[in-house]
Amino acid sequence: MLKKVEVGKKILSANEEYALKNTQLLTEQKKLCLNMISSPGSGKTTILTGTITDLKDKLKIGVIEGDIQTDIDAQRIKATKTPVVQINTAGACHLSASQIASALEDLPVADLDLIFIENVGNLVCPSAFELGETAKIVVLSVAEGDDKPAKYPGIFAKSKVMLINKIDLLESTAQLDFDIERAKTDARKLNKDIEIFSISAKTGAGMADWCDWLIKSVKTLRL
Amino acid sequence: MLKKVEVGKKILSANEEYALKNTQLLTEQKKLCLNMISSPGSGKTTILTGTITDLKDKLKIGVIEGDIQTDIDAQRIKATKTPVVQINTAGACHLSASQIASALEDLPVADLDLIFIENVGNLVCPSAFELGETAKIVVLSVAEGDDKPAKYPGIFAKSKVMLINKIDLLESTAQLDFDIERAKTDARKLNKDIEIFSISAKTGAGMADWCDWLIKSVKTLRL
Repeated sequence: MLKKVEVGKKILSANEEYALKNTQLLTEQKKLCLNMISSPGSGKTTILTGTITDLKDKLKIGVIEGDIQTDIDAQRIKATKTPVVQINTAGACHLSASQIASALEDLPVADLDLIFIENVGNLVCPSAFELGETAKIVVLSVAEGDDKPAKYPGIFAKSKVMLINKIDLLESTAQLDFDIERAKTDARKLNKDIEIFSISAKTGAGMADWCDWLIKSVKTLRL
Repeated sequence: MLKKVEVGKKILSANEEYALKNTQLLTEQKKLCLNMISSPGSGKTTILTGTITDLKDKLKIGVIEGDIQTDIDAQRIKATKTPVVQINTAGACHLSASQIASALEDLPVADLDLIFIENVGNLVCPSAFELGETAKIVVLSVAEGDDKPAKYPGIFAKSKVMLINKIDLLESTAQLDFDIERAKTDARKLNKDIEIFSISAKTGAGMADWCDWLIKSVKTLRL
């Protein structure tokens, strides 16, 4: 006997099923959940610890840390006394929605305003796996070169925000020839509405505008 | 009727079959073929153009360029008048052995001493796909942080050489706190025989030792 397939209903993958459940949970509870994606070493964890410190009296933040095998980053988050759940992917190159579903059960979601997911350092694969997040944030370090939006377009096309990090290096050394305008122009060619903040998580430069955007986004979600 | 399976013979994946064919071709012709793997923006292409220039009277070099969709890197190689074949992976996060088999047909292999494969910028996935290369070379930029061997161990465990690139940044700015000894120690914990060269492809620092290693390796292969 043939199985009945509902016409017009998209058949979801297992990952999409979990992503949908995560979205439903986050939407019902009106929680902002941001999936941070970048190359290894662009400064995701330093951005998180800086953001947590700057917003400690304004937003309650929780973090889901994705790593291939260590808990180096989760320990750095834990030192800020922020609730953090570590996911080790055991070699896998991206987080999956089922891992996030499980991590959300271990976080005090009801008490939080904002949940960050730090994905595995990889500019390619994580962009193809929806986690049920509210939005994706792509981080690009100026040390990586201004051609990255053109060369790795997928994640720049899908992100709500691009953080251009380590801008302190552009002032402190003449050895980098990163053209911020080229990176912005190429990102906007892929995604005309992308919000862009140029920051240094290390020195704090530009962090106020990024933090204001987070506060505004949390408020908008609650309306 | 049951199929006969030869006892003790490993059943190869399609990728492994192609990798084996590539290895056979390269071994028969005694060609050194190096698969360069790193995060996006660690400087692979600049290392290649620097190496090609430094060795232009000593070794005949060919390049296979892997990119997700542009030919930005292949154009940079072409400008050095080096034979180059571009592979666009159309979104895929690593090169496959069948793509290399096809690229080798388009290169004048018999005339070359050394073939570089520049893999897609990704510190995770390319390490899991053998291409039939003689050896893997991992590149780590000092801007990425000294914790990368610990956090992304797979590729450091499998590489013959680690190139620590952009060391000029350590001298020109006090903003980076990359500990070269930590990176070396962590890499050697995973791979005690790994050869390590600290270089700046931009200034040329350390490039002579790396080029000497290449010349020596080409000679050894011919013995």
